[in-house]
Amino acid sequence: MHAKAAIFDVFGTVVDWRSGVAAVMARAFVSKNLTHDAGAFADDWRAEYQPAMARIRSGNRGYVPLDDLHRENLDNVLSARGIADDFSAAERDIMNHAWEQLPPWPDSFAGLTMIRKHMLIATCSNGSIALMTALARFGGLPWDCILGAEIAQGYKPDPKVYLASCAALRLAPADVVMVAAHNDDLAAARAAGLRTAFIPRPDEKGPGLGETAPTSDWDFVAADLQALAPMLS
Amino acid sequence: MHAKAAIFDVFGTVVDWRSGVAAVMARAFVSKNLTHDAGAFADDWRAEYQPAMARIRSGNRGYVPLDDLHRENLDNVLSARGIADDFSAAERDIMNHAWEQLPPWPDSFAGLTMIRKHMLIATCSNGSIALMTALARFGGLPWDCILGAEIAQGYKPDPKVYLASCAALRLAPADVVMVAAHNDDLAAARAAGLRTAFIPRPDEKGPGLGETAPTSDWDFVAADLQALAPMLS
Repeated sequence: MHAKAAIFDVFGTVVDWRSGVAAVMARAFVSKNLTHDAGAFADDWRAEYQPAMARIRSGNRGYVPLDDLHRENLDNVLSARGIADDFSAAERDIMNHAWEQLPPWPDSFAGLTMIRKHMLIATCSNGSIALMTALARFGGLPWDCILGAEIAQGYKPDPKVYLASCAALRLAPADVVMVAAHNDDLAAARAAGLRTAFIPRPDEKGPGLGETAPTSDWDFVAADLQALAPMLS
Repeated sequence: MHAKAAIFDVFGTVVDWRSGVAAVMARAFVSKNLTHDAGAFADDWRAEYQPAMARIRSGNRGYVPLDDLHRENLDNVLSARGIADDFSAAERDIMNHAWEQLPPWPDSFAGLTMIRKHMLIATCSNGSIALMTALARFGGLPWDCILGAEIAQGYKPDPKVYLASCAALRLAPADVVMVAAHNDDLAAARAAGLRTAFIPRPDEKGPGLGETAPTSDWDFVAADLQALAPMLS
């Protein structure tokens, strides 16, 4: 029995967050005559992501959209580098939109379009509705709808994010396949009853620094989204 | 200052619910050798819509997706006509998907596509995420995202539905225009601080039985969605 919908991790799986954030930061540094490594800055910014979400997953803080967490984390990273005074609040607000300008991987548009011929496709990201919508417009991503963290009011790998996404589609978890380049995301999806598909994104965190191989017997493993499409059809 | 997003009522404004539901019911009646008027049946089914939502708006019942209200209402209408025993539960479940098979009005696709070039477009319907997603696939509607009742856990004209839709876009209500063929929908949107656009759908409830004219000084009034597009650009 084929799955009826495929839901996708987005940062890293569908879009190249590191290159996109680094491109925006490189322009910001040039505008201020600063000589910081934009890729390393992107890494530092992303490194704040899990601890910020962990506080919400643990219940120590109510749900706050990722846009706001990114903005807080930006302040932290600028301060840690001693360049907090170089950017006004308004300039930081603009820099925060870097996360809405992330290039899709070369196979993403074609792969999603192929998969969408056979089933419904939606995001299951920790990004907010606004962020996912902006990213879809930026990259031309053909989602049927935006699901994930905001409709669940929580953050992956909290099982409620996967379950709320299936519930919004009125589908049983077993009828939904979670697609990700991150083994831990798939482990949580499987534990929630979804099917799982792994694709490697070996350059996600910089050249050669992404996850390259499945660490479990996921239902599907493919080289990229174009290669995954015929497996799901 | 142009609006940054347009959000749309869907049933009646973007799609022709009466023709769509009647087409499904006509097939169902033929299959059972019943001679009921499918258009009148669609009207009766739709007539149950407001009372069912009113119970939720009043707080007498928690949020229940419209799909489930439609299903309950179908039972009521079949019973009222004395044909409840003609359809099994499984057959009724299939008939309930009539609401996912509603044809867009002739100008809808072109109009939405034009508006989308200038701003983000989203649904602000009382339909669920699953229902709006199915309808978008059925009619090829190019929404950027699905907002409305389900993310607000309530039903229009409760102001929280309009406000939750703006909040999901991270936009102030004044930056969002609500588009509808129903004056009461626009009155509620305006009261919540949104801009408003009226288009008539004179045949929505059968030939000549829709709203034909604005009853207030809405920000925009156009003959249809294609005529509205240049006003919003």
